This record gives sequence, C-alpha cells and structure tokens, in this order.
Amino acid sequence: MAIDYDKLKNWHFPDLEHRYETRDTILYALGVGCGADPMDRDELRFVYEDGLKALPTMAVVLGYPGFWLKDPKTGVDWRMVLHGEQGVKIHAPLPASGTVIGRSRVTEIIDKGPGKGALIYSDRDVFDKASGQHLATLTMTAFIRGEGGFGGPSGPAPEPHAIPERAPDTVVDIPTLPRAALIYRLSGDYNPLHADPAVAQAVGFPQPILHGLCSFGVAGRAILKACCGNDPARLKEIDVRFSAPVFPGETIRTEIWQDGATVSYRCRVVERDVLVLNNGRALVA
Amino acid sequence: MAIDYDKLKNWHFPDLEHRYETRDTILYALGVGCGADPMDRDELRFVYEDGLKALPTMAVVLGYPGFWLKDPKTGVDWRMVLHGEQGVKIHAPLPASGTVIGRSRVTEIIDKGPGKGALIYSDRDVFDKASGQHLATLTMTAFIRGEGGFGGPSGPAPEPHAIPERAPDTVVDIPTLPRAALIYRLSGDYNPLHADPAVAQAVGFPQPILHGLCSFGVAGRAILKACCGNDPARLKEIDVRFSAPVFPGETIRTEIWQDGATVSYRCRVVERDVLVLNNGRALVA
Repeated sequence: MAIDYDKLKNWHFPDLEHRYETRDTILYALGVGCGADPMDRDELRFVYEDGLKALPTMAVVLGYPGFWLKDPKTGVDWRMVLHGEQGVKIHAPLPASGTVIGRSRVTEIIDKGPGKGALIYSDRDVFDKASGQHLATLTMTAFIRGEGGFGGPSGPAPEPHAIPERAPDTVVDIPTLPRAALIYRLSGDYNPLHADPAVAQAVGFPQPILHGLCSFGVAGRAILKACCGNDPARLKEIDVRFSAPVFPGETIRTEIWQDGATVSYRCRVVERDVLVLNNGRALVA
Repeated sequence: MAIDYDKLKNWHFPDLEHRYETRDTILYALGVGCGADPMDRDELRFVYEDGLKALPTMAVVLGYPGFWLKDPKTGVDWRMVLHGEQGVKIHAPLPASGTVIGRSRVTEIIDKGPGKGALIYSDRDVFDKASGQHLATLTMTAFIRGEGGFGGPSGPAPEPHAIPERAPDTVVDIPTLPRAALIYRLSGDYNPLHADPAVAQAVGFPQPILHGLCSFGVAGRAILKACCGNDPARLKEIDVRFSAPVFPGETIRTEIWQDGATVSYRCRVVERDVLVLNNGRALVA
C-alpha cells in the first residue's frame, strides 16, 4: 500500500450536507473546554441555548468529510496520519444551528522523500444551504509519517507565519480535562488514536493524544478572550501549525502578540514546557 | 395557575419515538462522569464505540417526554419542580443504539396540603421499536414545592426502602466536574435550573444544581463497579429518593450494603457531608 500521487491529488469528495443543532454547537464548545466555570457568564454564551453563539473554530467540524484518509484506497496508513496545519477563514458568523454544505478538495501533495513523510494539503468551503452564503474556508495539512518516495513534488511548501521576537503581550492558561478527547471526538473525529490506549500505543504514544483541532479550539478561546472581548464575530481568521501532541489533562498556555488586527500566537504545555502549537496567526476586528 | 387534579391525572402523553445513536449513549455516560481516567479500560466500554455498552441508568433518558411539567396547562409552576424519586427496572439490556418507544402516564397525585407541596407519580415503559421487546420501566415522583390544597388525595405514599443499620459494606467516591450539568443536560433535560445562574438564583439556589438523574447515574456507576464487576447486564433494578441537591463539582460518596441480590445504598456529598440520595435499592444478578 503506497500513495499514488495522481489518484490522491484528484480524490473525489462529494458535496457533504451537514445538519447541526444547538446541541452540537454546545457539544463542540464543551469539547474545547468551555463551561469549566459554570458561573462565568462570558462563557455561558457558548454552552447554553439561550443566546447561544457558535465558536468560530467550530467551522473545522462543519461539512467535515470524516477521516477520509482511513480509506485504504488512499494508499495512506491511517495510523501514521498527523494533523500538520489548520487554517480557518470566517466569511460570516456561524449560525448556532443550521444546514451547511461542505465542499472539499486536495490542493497539493508534497513528497519529503523515502521514509521522511508526505504532506497532503486540502481545502474545504462551507456554505449555508438555505441562503448559499459562504460561511468559512478551511485549509488543512496532513502529515503522513514514514511515507515518501512516491514521485510527488518535493516543494515548495508555504512558509510558516513568523512569531515576533519580543516577549508575548498576553498569556492565557487553559487546563484541559483528562477526558477532553472523549468529549471532543463526539464532534465528529472518531480516530481511535484519541480514545483507544491500544491504538495509541501501537504508534508509539503512551496514551491516547488530544485531537490537534481540540488544542486549536482551546487556542481560539484564548484569543477570543484576550483579543476579541469573547465576541466570536470579531475573530476573522485563525491559522496554526501543530508541533507536538498534547495529552488530555495537560494545561495549554497560549502566548499572544497583537499588532493591530494581526495576532500572532503559539501554545505550550505548561507541565512539560513543550511547544505544541506554533506559528499561529489570527486576524481580529 | 393551580393544579387541576383530574386534568393532570389524565394528562395525555402521545407515544414517543426516540432514535438514539452510539454517540448519544457515549454522551450519556460522559454526562454521568465516565471517562475521568481515559486509561481505565473498565470504563472505556461506556465511552468508546468499539464494544460499547449502555449504562442501565440511561433508560431514564430513553423515550423521555421532555420537561412536560413546564407546559403551563399542567397548572404547575415549573420553577418549583424538584425530582423526588426515580426507579428503573431493566427487562432486557439496553442496546447501544436503536429506536425506542416511550409510553408515559401519570399514576397518582398526592396533595400534601396548602403550601406544603404535591407529589406527582408517573410511569414510563420503554420498548424496542423493531422487536417490540419491553426494555425498561421507569417510575418517577416529582415534588412540587409550595403546591397543595387542590383537592387531591393526601395519601398513602409508598414507604421508602429502609437502609440497614450496620456500617456500609463498601464505599465508592466519585468526583463530579463543575461542568457536569452542562454535559448531562445534552442527554435531554434542558431545564435551565441546571445551566442558568439567574434561573437558579430566582428559586433560591446560589448556583445551578446538578440534575438529580445525573447524581443517580453516578450512584449507578458506583453500584455497577462495586457489585456487578462493571457488567451492565447484571444491574436489574435501581431506585432512589432524592434528598438534597448536589452542586456540580462536588464529590458523591455512595455507601453500599449488599444482602444477596438486594443492594441498599445512599449518597452524600463529601465536601458538605449532606445526604443527597437516600433509601436507595438495587437488584443485581
């Protein structure tokens, strides 16, 4: 089983219709750790149906085609898949419930050489079904460990966003729960790597790891709080590169730099002092 | 607005068809606190779709007619409703997913006298839609604070199960999360008393309280672990009387006595040493 460049590059994603309810919007917010203090009215807006607002990072689970790289026909060993990068552009605030259309495509595949890995880039546009409004564009990079040498282009890969040299302007610490991945996965990414100790250990982790997109959602909350007064309509774009896994139960420290509308950020796990998200960029209004 | 005995006694519940997925079964288990240690394989069976088992207490959310006492036509002030007692009889192990029919009825209404309160007893049978198999019977007592004097019978009310005089045979402590009610409510009981600080304070609580049925689910987990080797098929019946509210974040201590197949239990909040569930009875195989 190996990657066939042309076949994977032209992978066909049918348009995906996705109905979600306020319950799903609340569950996503609980999955990224909202509600830790149920008396915090600033956060109640993300976890309680009266006045409910969707977190902007929830776009990553809307119209999501599922863990499509698990399909053996992709030629990819799904146990070797890591989430490399994620970008979110919000074109219009996400409704707290609705029906969306997700339209995905592979945009490029980079061959890092035999045994070194492969990068699979894909985009997804999300539209409101009823109005046709373009709600969000997602960009995603999957890193496939150990793959390579299948004859794909060796570059160029986009340059990561540079973090300022100065000390961060703001730091936000958010603890995660040991059960965080078990909650987060109910938003649609059922990769057993995040739940099954045997699967995690088979690929060299001591225990199931947190979804990269869950850590990303935690970082998004930190930026919403520090730079947007917790108003989700003010977060327009947010991108990140995943550096290392987070284990559920660890505390995620988001270091934030704000230069006008541009926010730079990175996240480290406090307990191990390891950078887990890097080269983060956001655009705020 | 006041209770009309005949109208409420003959309240019409249409048969309720309820489709639930493995995701709902997992969410219920997370709502009663499973998954706190994601490396605990004994509990993984309740929160992971590979080999998933439904917790027996999940019957309380199957075919549930919703918070029907909120309907103004019942004559009940919904903000004064407390859950008094709950019983569960399991006739066949609950499927991890399926479609059930819930058939509810009011069985009696006790009038405790003017200003003293009312007790509303109701039953619900739950059937598997496809096979017609009788899965569970739920019995529920609602206590309406301040109601009474509407001309209903003053008794007799059933005697509560007596707890043995001796020291408990086993004690199981299970901490709850401050966000526990926010997770539990996604299983279908959206009473704002469990989420909205303003609603909770309007009826005299300092903060939202945990659902009685969530505490009950925690007690059910304690009994499953202590008396059933975590095998849900061995828990046949479980009843309880609710004594006092639990605040999310508190630790629930279940004191257990086993006499043959009969289990007696009660629960207290460790932090305040207050009895919260009392007169508990279970039947195990």
